[in-house]
Amino acid sequence: MSKKRLIPVGLSNRHLHISDIDLATLFGQGYELTVLKPLIQPGQYAAEECVELHGPKGFFAKVRILGPTRPVTQVEISISDSFKLGIKAAVRQSGDVTGSPPGCKLVGPKGQVEISEGVIVASRHIHMTTAEAEAFGLKDMDMVKVKADGLRGITFDNVLVRANDSYALEMHVDMDEGNAGGVIRNGDMLEIIEVSK
Amino acid sequence: MSKKRLIPVGLSNRHLHISDIDLATLFGQGYELTVLKPLIQPGQYAAEECVELHGPKGFFAKVRILGPTRPVTQVEISISDSFKLGIKAAVRQSGDVTGSPPGCKLVGPKGQVEISEGVIVASRHIHMTTAEAEAFGLKDMDMVKVKADGLRGITFDNVLVRANDSYALEMHVDMDEGNAGGVIRNGDMLEIIEVSK
Repeated sequence: MSKKRLIPVGLSNRHLHISDIDLATLFGQGYELTVLKPLIQPGQYAAEECVELHGPKGFFAKVRILGPTRPVTQVEISISDSFKLGIKAAVRQSGDVTGSPPGCKLVGPKGQVEISEGVIVASRHIHMTTAEAEAFGLKDMDMVKVKADGLRGITFDNVLVRANDSYALEMHVDMDEGNAGGVIRNGDMLEIIEVSK
Repeated sequence: MSKKRLIPVGLSNRHLHISDIDLATLFGQGYELTVLKPLIQPGQYAAEECVELHGPKGFFAKVRILGPTRPVTQVEISISDSFKLGIKAAVRQSGDVTGSPPGCKLVGPKGQVEISEGVIVASRHIHMTTAEAEAFGLKDMDMVKVKADGLRGITFDNVLVRANDSYALEMHVDMDEGNAGGVIRNGDMLEIIEVSK
């Protein structure tokens, strides 16, 4: 393939997705999230609402909720964050929280929730439409290698392709990964250089 | 080359090297560093002594001094740290501090020092003896690519080779880089996969 397969990157800072029931406990019965800013993924948004995130060793005072609400609460942190919190978080694909380590407490203005699972370090991945996947010679669940150029140039192995027509083209990495690769900024273009099997 | 070129990794957390004059200001006239633990590089050690490191936006309460003292004080932080401190630290080779950004204050038990330059994000690099370099087909100042395997497998471009008979074989990366590549642990073996020009 002669044409470069370039993907804009989006940096994920620590955040959480929240269930209706946990939202009610933390913010009060019938509470609804307020949109602060739409995200690149269609229908997704950063909410005005933040919570405190507590682990056995430390806490973060303001962790943002991404909306809309989901069936299951899921907290996404970096490996650096996991050391600060004192939680042995597992690297997982988003949604795959069963059996992920416990030990985390969310505190909102109206209450708190101890979550028994659902703290993960999200695997890096690329969202794209099925048409974009086809144009790139890829399909849903392919694994690819992605290269970031520069002084601290880096290649990420094991990047999962998620192709679905509800997505927009974007590669998600966390802050550790962004900082390791120089400073990768939102919207920087990274290149798929290899499809692994 | 059929034999793998494997290098043990050493993770560098934030730390500083200190000049005699700054040591005297921070800890008192005639003060000498106390060895806490020898490092892998011959003659180098983690000292008992720590200082506070302050930037415009934040601080770290305990940043360890690595000994022995050096001609010029040099603070080495990660890009994550630079955001917390509010310092726009430059990625540099160790020792190359001229014109690096100012804005950092060191506080010790007996005094404090404002440093006008010398806060850097150290470029990743590999220490080795000249004999090890020769066996690997490398020489001082070569640039290589180094691969870490695993779920979060990663390849680091632009890794500088430092070959000198006062060194021991070890690759230095910072915490952002270690955390981005899964959790790379001290002593994990990484592989040189390519020499770039």
